[in-house]
Amino acid sequence: WSPHVAHELITTANSLVNPRGKGIYATDESPNVMQALFDGVPLNNHEERVWSEAENRERRKKWRECAYKAVPSEYISGVILYAETLIDFGLGPILADKGVIPGVRANGELMPIPSSPSEFIVEGLDGLLGRLQAARAAGARFSKWRVPIACTSKERGLPTQTALELQAETLGRYAAMSQKAGLVPIVEPDVEFSEDADLARSVEVHEKAITLIYERMKAYNVLLEGSIIKPSFPQPGLKNQNRGQYKPEDIALATATVIARSVPGSVPGVAFLSGGLPPALATHYLAALNALINSSKPPSLFSRLPPLTFSFGRALQGDALKEWVKGNENETRSLLQKWSKVCWQSACGVVPS
Amino acid sequence: WSPHVAHELITTANSLVNPRGKGIYATDESPNVMQALFDGVPLNNHEERVWSEAENRERRKKWRECAYKAVPSEYISGVILYAETLIDFGLGPILADKGVIPGVRANGELMPIPSSPSEFIVEGLDGLLGRLQAARAAGARFSKWRVPIACTSKERGLPTQTALELQAETLGRYAAMSQKAGLVPIVEPDVEFSEDADLARSVEVHEKAITLIYERMKAYNVLLEGSIIKPSFPQPGLKNQNRGQYKPEDIALATATVIARSVPGSVPGVAFLSGGLPPALATHYLAALNALINSSKPPSLFSRLPPLTFSFGRALQGDALKEWVKGNENETRSLLQKWSKVCWQSACGVVPS
Amino acid sequence: WSPHVAHELITTANSLVNPRGKGIYATDESPNVMQALFDGVPLNNHEERVWSEAENRERRKKWRECAYKAVPSEYISGVILYAETLIDFGLGPILADKGVIPGVRANGELMPIPSSPSEFIVEGLDGLLGRLQAARAAGARFSKWRVPIACTSKERGLPTQTALELQAETLGRYAAMSQKAGLVPIVEPDVEFSEDADLARSVEVHEKAITLIYERMKAYNVLLEGSIIKPSFPQPGLKNQNRGQYKPEDIALATATVIARSVPGSVPGVAFLSGGLPPALATHYLAALNALINSSKPPSLFSRLPPLTFSFGRALQGDALKEWVKGNENETRSLLQKWSKVCWQSACGVVPS
Amino acid sequence: WSPHVAHELITTANSLVNPRGKGIYATDESPNVMQALFDGVPLNNHEERVWSEAENRERRKKWRECAYKAVPSEYISGVILYAETLIDFGLGPILADKGVIPGVRANGELMPIPSSPSEFIVEGLDGLLGRLQAARAAGARFSKWRVPIACTSKERGLPTQTALELQAETLGRYAAMSQKAGLVPIVEPDVEFSEDADLARSVEVHEKAITLIYERMKAYNVLLEGSIIKPSFPQPGLKNQNRGQYKPEDIALATATVIARSVPGSVPGVAFLSGGLPPALATHYLAALNALINSSKPPSLFSRLPPLTFSFGRALQGDALKEWVKGNENETRSLLQKWSKVCWQSACGVVPS
Repeated sequence: WSPHVAHELITTANSLVNPRGKGIYATDESPNVMQALFDGVPLNNHEERVWSEAENRERRKKWRECAYKAVPSEYISGVILYAETLIDFGLGPILADKGVIPGVRANGELMPIPSSPSEFIVEGLDGLLGRLQAARAAGARFSKWRVPIACTSKERGLPTQTALELQAETLGRYAAMSQKAGLVPIVEPDVEFSEDADLARSVEVHEKAITLIYERMKAYNVLLEGSIIKPSFPQPGLKNQNRGQYKPEDIALATATVIARSVPGSVPGVAFLSGGLPPALATHYLAALNALINSSKPPSLFSRLPPLTFSFGRALQGDALKEWVKGNENETRSLLQKWSKVCWQSACGVVPS
Repeated sequence: WSPHVAHELITTANSLVNPRGKGIYATDESPNVMQALFDGVPLNNHEERVWSEAENRERRKKWRECAYKAVPSEYISGVILYAETLIDFGLGPILADKGVIPGVRANGELMPIPSSPSEFIVEGLDGLLGRLQAARAAGARFSKWRVPIACTSKERGLPTQTALELQAETLGRYAAMSQKAGLVPIVEPDVEFSEDADLARSVEVHEKAITLIYERMKAYNVLLEGSIIKPSFPQPGLKNQNRGQYKPEDIALATATVIARSVPGSVPGVAFLSGGLPPALATHYLAALNALINSSKPPSLFSRLPPLTFSFGRALQGDALKEWVKGNENETRSLLQKWSKVCWQSACGVVPS
Repeated sequence: WSPHVAHELITTANSLVNPRGKGIYATDESPNVMQALFDGVPLNNHEERVWSEAENRERRKKWRECAYKAVPSEYISGVILYAETLIDFGLGPILADKGVIPGVRANGELMPIPSSPSEFIVEGLDGLLGRLQAARAAGARFSKWRVPIACTSKERGLPTQTALELQAETLGRYAAMSQKAGLVPIVEPDVEFSEDADLARSVEVHEKAITLIYERMKAYNVLLEGSIIKPSFPQPGLKNQNRGQYKPEDIALATATVIARSVPGSVPGVAFLSGGLPPALATHYLAALNALINSSKPPSLFSRLPPLTFSFGRALQGDALKEWVKGNENETRSLLQKWSKVCWQSACGVVPS
Repeated sequence: WSPHVAHELITTANSLVNPRGKGIYATDESPNVMQALFDGVPLNNHEERVWSEAENRERRKKWRECAYKAVPSEYISGVILYAETLIDFGLGPILADKGVIPGVRANGELMPIPSSPSEFIVEGLDGLLGRLQAARAAGARFSKWRVPIACTSKERGLPTQTALELQAETLGRYAAMSQKAGLVPIVEPDVEFSEDADLARSVEVHEKAITLIYERMKAYNVLLEGSIIKPSFPQPGLKNQNRGQYKPEDIALATATVIARSVPGSVPGVAFLSGGLPPALATHYLAALNALINSSKPPSLFSRLPPLTFSFGRALQGDALKEWVKGNENETRSLLQKWSKVCWQSACGVVPS
């Protein structure tokens, strides 16, 4: 590493998770997903409206513009953009001008593993360096790559060892390419909670997955000090009958344990994903986790954890989007600001009463 | 595996290397490389001729057509086509009609590994399944993926462990995808001989690389019985001062040892690449190897090796191409047939006198 | 490897499995197990006899002497001795004098893995080199190390990945030490069939275990050409409800497939263990396997497998021991010779009618 | 883990490295090494004295007794005993009575790896659980296992990948057994500095070795929160020509970087070994390291490192031993106390002026 490049990567990575409380706004939905979100908002007048491709593109751009202008830089450190938003729409400067760091989603789409079709290869490594360099030229300073990790009970046997190795290898190569392009890599292992795993199993899978990821990142000589991780919260699956018995405090303890065991101390911060969690639950988990940290005094292990913050999409923008679709721009802005503050408070450890 | 698919894969794989002596003609040069080969033929009249893109495309098509029509099916079991030749030019049926199996090159281009820039990632995994399915629809029954493996003296330290693991992982995923598309995978670990490695080092690197490749192919549940390997011959590097001291018999012994140690018995055959070797040397190595096999009687290990044949490009077509560029179609055909027979004889163990 | 040592190891390994049909007689029961075998023979007179330690020791010696004198060298290539028999009793020369190769059991006792107490570490690596050198001085020319491998249905989850890696690592180190002491290593992965695994699961576990073992043997630079493997037959577990539906021909096909996929061609031979199988069944499996080989003509994969023979204990000596305990030495000898011939016939592919 | 056992392991591990400044006194020399240390002290009168085995044993006991009585519990948290001292001499209670935790050396002797004879297997796994249980019964509450790791320049190629994997596997199994016996494991990767490695190479080898060790400890389900690591300081080798150019501050920075990258946050503390370093240098390195920590404020990575203390032998007792051999018990005690305080100050970050 040249000292200059290393210094920039380390500075950017630290800026994404400091000062404590600030976190990341994830807006990297693909056009199709964005469309589905627009369509999902029930309109008052029950009219059916049909949009052309060009109109849809314009809508995506307008929505992003509105949201990025509203993003409060005292709560939000960075925003993850889809390549279209960054490069075609050129919206990075709106963020950068007010001190919010733009980043880019780097991963492509999913493809089933032939030997285990309910697990997925993430595409996007072909031609990656060029795409990342283009993103940097358009203002990005970090990138993000998500890998899904299936998680069932031990009896049902997912994830397979091969899939865990595959995801770790992919993230290791991606992270090395990202740093080569001058972008802080955010590795995102998203352990699913849709199945029957109990909490202990989810903890075990998180630990294994994250440990393997850092093993491969080291193999590719990634500068850990200039990288971030975006993990899921360990939690029982939706089909696990005991899911209801766990409180946010239990999730917090499990999460802190996983991070302490598997994320190297040289990683400057952790920004959790909210995935399919309802916004109130995601922020509650995060708040309980940070409250646990606040109550942990040296020499407790948890007093030594790095900043634990958010990298949320739906939790931040869900309510705002509904208003925007209905044409209420003022409400859109104020809801986005309200939820940004809620997330910031959670990352500071303020548990909702 | 459905019994039907497994049976077809196994039958095709066996047909590529049996009856003994038959081998594969590799014509998977990219358009740029093909262009360079055309341009490399010195013309009698010293005229400089400039070709348009469309003319070049037509030339590639004509050359392939001429070659494929000339290919003798008593010596050649299969031909590896570049996707353009197979799909755009639609030349597979010329081969299939006379019992020669068409295949497709599946791998993409090279990209340096950020942490070790003289070693290379092979691109092409994104969207692979779709491309392979299209190749099958166009008549292909096998595919091929080449990975380059650097090889220096131990002191100079290549290949790195990370690169070996990367190449094995790539080939494992490719092979699984290929079989899912109904194509026999030919994995091609091409250990370079341009550096200072001695023969023992080349042997060591071949063994390590091939062992890791099969480890990953098994992890992805590849049906080894329906796959082929296309390795290089272990040999001292061109910068190794003792390279000149080794005879084809020494290369043959080293090669047989490597294959016995690292290729599982369930693989139906081995088709060596000629790489940068002069045609006479490549065929001499292959002949010496098969002569060694012929002289090995049970219970000798070497008597139990699978068919060891060729998957040659330059060695087969180099002389013919020169005539074709000069417009001599008859000589083109007869040279291609002559060299096909030479390769077949080598794979039968007939050492040139 | 010095050429002299390598040559001796290779010659010995080949002598253990050639000419085809010859196999190994395993007599490496520990004193306690030997005692249990003696005690298990019901005596005619219903008398209870109590033996002192010294008397028991003398019995063990007498039994071994009787058996070794009876061993027919046309059917038996080598005998595995317990260290006491080889070193304290000095019985190796009885065998060596008639051309039967003496070997020694090298592994120690079992110890549960703390994180998975129904799987076991095999002790015996401490001080191993010295013990092996002593065995060689007493006439041994090969050694053997057994590792047990648990095998349940996938749902019940055994073996663990950690246990498979542990056993492979142990065998890799053992084999390297054995060759350093001048003894051909026989690695014995004994996949259990006491649980609920079906045939496909047993095949999968055999393949994984054996593949990992050779990966580690290569890591320790073991000369595969001077080594032997003693695997179990893949088969459904005793608690699997479909166990009864499989015929010896099914076991034979599964076994040949496993060997072709996982044992490198450079290994000169395979000598199966009988484990807890009744003698008639063990010999039937072996006979069906070799009959399958006999019916496989080139280029069939199975025509290229190495010699597949036996390394049996109970199957060879069970009947003979009963007579010896009763004092009938002539019957002892003739039963041992009879069963040696049965095993030899099985290894030649003669299926019992 | 039963909550009771886990709690005790965690409490003991924390007590070994807290409050900050307290560290471990290593007295686990084998009798032969102890003898050499006694003999190494030049006596005034130049008399040659010959000791019987029984006298030597008595001397070892007397020396230990004197030292343990003098150990100041305000600076020393624990003492590592050789099994003879703990079990035969029964000296644990002297320490326990004043609040110093007794531990036991668990590893055995070294044996060259056959494929790489300048690297070493550490013996001692056979029968380990029983020995550790006996140590616990004699008062031990922790144990320690040292593995040596060769370290040359990359060109000279040590350590080998196989040796790194071997040492990690050994430590993983040991640590699991130690916790099963109720003893906190201290894993000691001792990267040698006798060769030509430069600082960057030593850092690389430390990171690789420690990362692999925790990978295997996790595979064996070791409770990291109830374990300690005793690593070496990364440093250029004695044969590296630039060794003299590095100051303790450089070593401190390299050390902090290695720990942050490779020791999981869930490990409660790090106790460095002094190895062959002169006492003044070992304490200087430790002091510079802790001074760096003291100057690192949040959110600096180094502000989040766990306690970094000492586990020294020679540095603590070297001077005292000389006086004891000469019969000066008062000076012995005061020197041991003086050096205990020096070590404690170093672990607090007081750099010697």
